[in-house]
Amino acid sequence: MTGKKWAFEDFVEGSVIDLGSKRATAEEIVEFAKEFDPQPMHLDEAAGTASILGGLSASGWHTCAMFMRLLCDGILLDSTSQGSPGIDYVKWKKPVLAGDTLTATVKVLGTRVSKSRPSLGLVTIHSEMHNQDGVSVLELENTIMFLKREGAPSA
Amino acid sequence: MTGKKWAFEDFVEGSVIDLGSKRATAEEIVEFAKEFDPQPMHLDEAAGTASILGGLSASGWHTCAMFMRLLCDGILLDSTSQGSPGIDYVKWKKPVLAGDTLTATVKVLGTRVSKSRPSLGLVTIHSEMHNQDGVSVLELENTIMFLKREGAPSA
Repeated sequence: MTGKKWAFEDFVEGSVIDLGSKRATAEEIVEFAKEFDPQPMHLDEAAGTASILGGLSASGWHTCAMFMRLLCDGILLDSTSQGSPGIDYVKWKKPVLAGDTLTATVKVLGTRVSKSRPSLGLVTIHSEMHNQDGVSVLELENTIMFLKREGAPSA
Repeated sequence: MTGKKWAFEDFVEGSVIDLGSKRATAEEIVEFAKEFDPQPMHLDEAAGTASILGGLSASGWHTCAMFMRLLCDGILLDSTSQGSPGIDYVKWKKPVLAGDTLTATVKVLGTRVSKSRPSLGLVTIHSEMHNQDGVSVLELENTIMFLKREGAPSA
């Protein structure tokens, strides 16, 4: 038996898991952009306002990274996760502006046991983040591998 | 006429664009992980070695972010880019380990002019990063919007 909160058996098709919220500060948006995505609308309020994004806005990859932190804190760090081979799609639906508060949820689309490794299960999830106005800003879908609770190494 | 190096007309279907290289240092891997993906194999050499990844390894999102920096430096920062609505897929094919040098390329899969905005073109690209051993570690595909050179605002 594993001592982790989340093992394969804990993911129920159709259920929705709340991952809590994260505020996107101007400082963090600029810091990320300087290192990874130094386009003007991610670095500077005036350039952002002049762009189609309408203000200093987070890099799309920063939005994904902020989601990942919520997924870690809400599920992965207390789970039997064995990682993910990739992402089926990412949709950057609306700009994430400095000061926005993002709330993330995960919906379990499906679960199945691995045919080649019966101790492993595959959980396909649809993830979404909304801003403080209830507007959806990010959607993504992927499959994460989790060890089963039965037969998993003890924590 | 735009003074930018890369406008819609400069992307030729089937062509491959070299984006240069980036070394993934242990310090950067840990720094990213602390903020966005604090799973043990991204934070600690011993935990990484004990994991299926085989060493201190970059978060998959960090790998995407490193690719984005190369795409910015190689194309986007001197282009008429109007952004991208998302990513069609991401494949994290092999671990990115501390000290790896990643080389990125972009292949142009297709180009078409926007029906609703004739001054805008859509460029679909397949992007890939290889490590110093020639092993493919990342693949992704997406569509980026670029203004046409003809009719674009002057730089």
